[in-house]
Amino acid sequence: MPRSAPNASAPSVWERKKLQAMREIQRAALDLFDEYGFRSVTVEQVATASRVSPSSIYRYFGTKEALVLWDEYDPRLIELLSQNSDTVVTPEEFVEEIRAAAPELIRELSTDEDRIRRRMRYVASETDVRDGLARETRRLEDVLRQVIGARIGRDPDDLQIRLLAAMLAWGFDAALDYWVETDFDLPLADALAYAIEALTRSAESVLGFPAPHSRTPRHKN
Amino acid sequence: MPRSAPNASAPSVWERKKLQAMREIQRAALDLFDEYGFRSVTVEQVATASRVSPSSIYRYFGTKEALVLWDEYDPRLIELLSQNSDTVVTPEEFVEEIRAAAPELIRELSTDEDRIRRRMRYVASETDVRDGLARETRRLEDVLRQVIGARIGRDPDDLQIRLLAAMLAWGFDAALDYWVETDFDLPLADALAYAIEALTRSAESVLGFPAPHSRTPRHKN
Repeated sequence: MPRSAPNASAPSVWERKKLQAMREIQRAALDLFDEYGFRSVTVEQVATASRVSPSSIYRYFGTKEALVLWDEYDPRLIELLSQNSDTVVTPEEFVEEIRAAAPELIRELSTDEDRIRRRMRYVASETDVRDGLARETRRLEDVLRQVIGARIGRDPDDLQIRLLAAMLAWGFDAALDYWVETDFDLPLADALAYAIEALTRSAESVLGFPAPHSRTPRHKN
Repeated sequence: MPRSAPNASAPSVWERKKLQAMREIQRAALDLFDEYGFRSVTVEQVATASRVSPSSIYRYFGTKEALVLWDEYDPRLIELLSQNSDTVVTPEEFVEEIRAAAPELIRELSTDEDRIRRRMRYVASETDVRDGLARETRRLEDVLRQVIGARIGRDPDDLQIRLLAAMLAWGFDAALDYWVETDFDLPLADALAYAIEALTRSAESVLGFPAPHSRTPRHKN
């Protein structure tokens, strides 16, 4: 039985205000980048345009690249996968949960298609932004290992779980690359729906194929 | 029918000499890194120890990180996948070729297990080496797209081909991560055999699930 508190994922007032501020700063930053180019615009200019201090921008975003990369929907993927994370389910049940959560995730992301398109142009054109996305994808990979391990009651360091997390995180990244490099030809929802189902099928293949045991088990069972 | 010339992949005398020189430089570099630490040793010191000029090292390896990352077996994966690359095969035939080529690749890599283990410790401990490996993995992803596209007669920019290449490249990377972070507990051959079969099964799942068509086909057929 799930033990999480009701409405555990509802954001606090403070979180909602922060989210709203970040949205406004990102919009101001993208306006400036589109007009003057990513490299020409300083964080100080973004701060002036969005009427906050440069230190607030660094506190919220961390880096200039993150002004482009930040995506308020990123945590949603993790939230959707870690629903009821106190309950351990079978790999088959977990895969069905991913399938069931996909339409809602795709719907949310598609609502934001214009902003994502605007941001992704910089991933294609700016090396620093591209490198920043690779670092985020590596972080996503680590979070996915923890989430998947917890959901199906497995060690997040297992070879099988590592393979799954790598495939999901970088497959998602590849789907966005595709969308950017075909100049957003396919609707985002179609590209994502395909990628999520293809990755889910791959996850089923890997989960149905147990990894060899290590010589010295790291956990007592 | 294959149209490649006989012995097309046999290295020239010059290539064999270069390979031998790179092996010796890498061995000298690893000896120095193991004794004094990766960050303390300069490229000049590696040059002195291996009796070549620093400019030769930069010409052969490009960066200090590459002294650790360079793996003479890296091109073998691509070679094995692109055998008879003039012949277009079905996705099913291509998957069977990967399966058939895996034991030889695993055998070659296992012969070199000690050196790979020595190199991989720096991937775990040095951020620059880790970042360098991520860049190599992205390059591998791009090469895999080209090779897979050519082998099965598909556009390397297709969503399906991008997903496959991302899964294979980063899955391979995840298997090495696992091996490093479990302190090389499982024999390399076992970790690789599992990862290659798991990734092959995933590739079968993706190849059996056609991607949606883009609105404006980029190629006339």
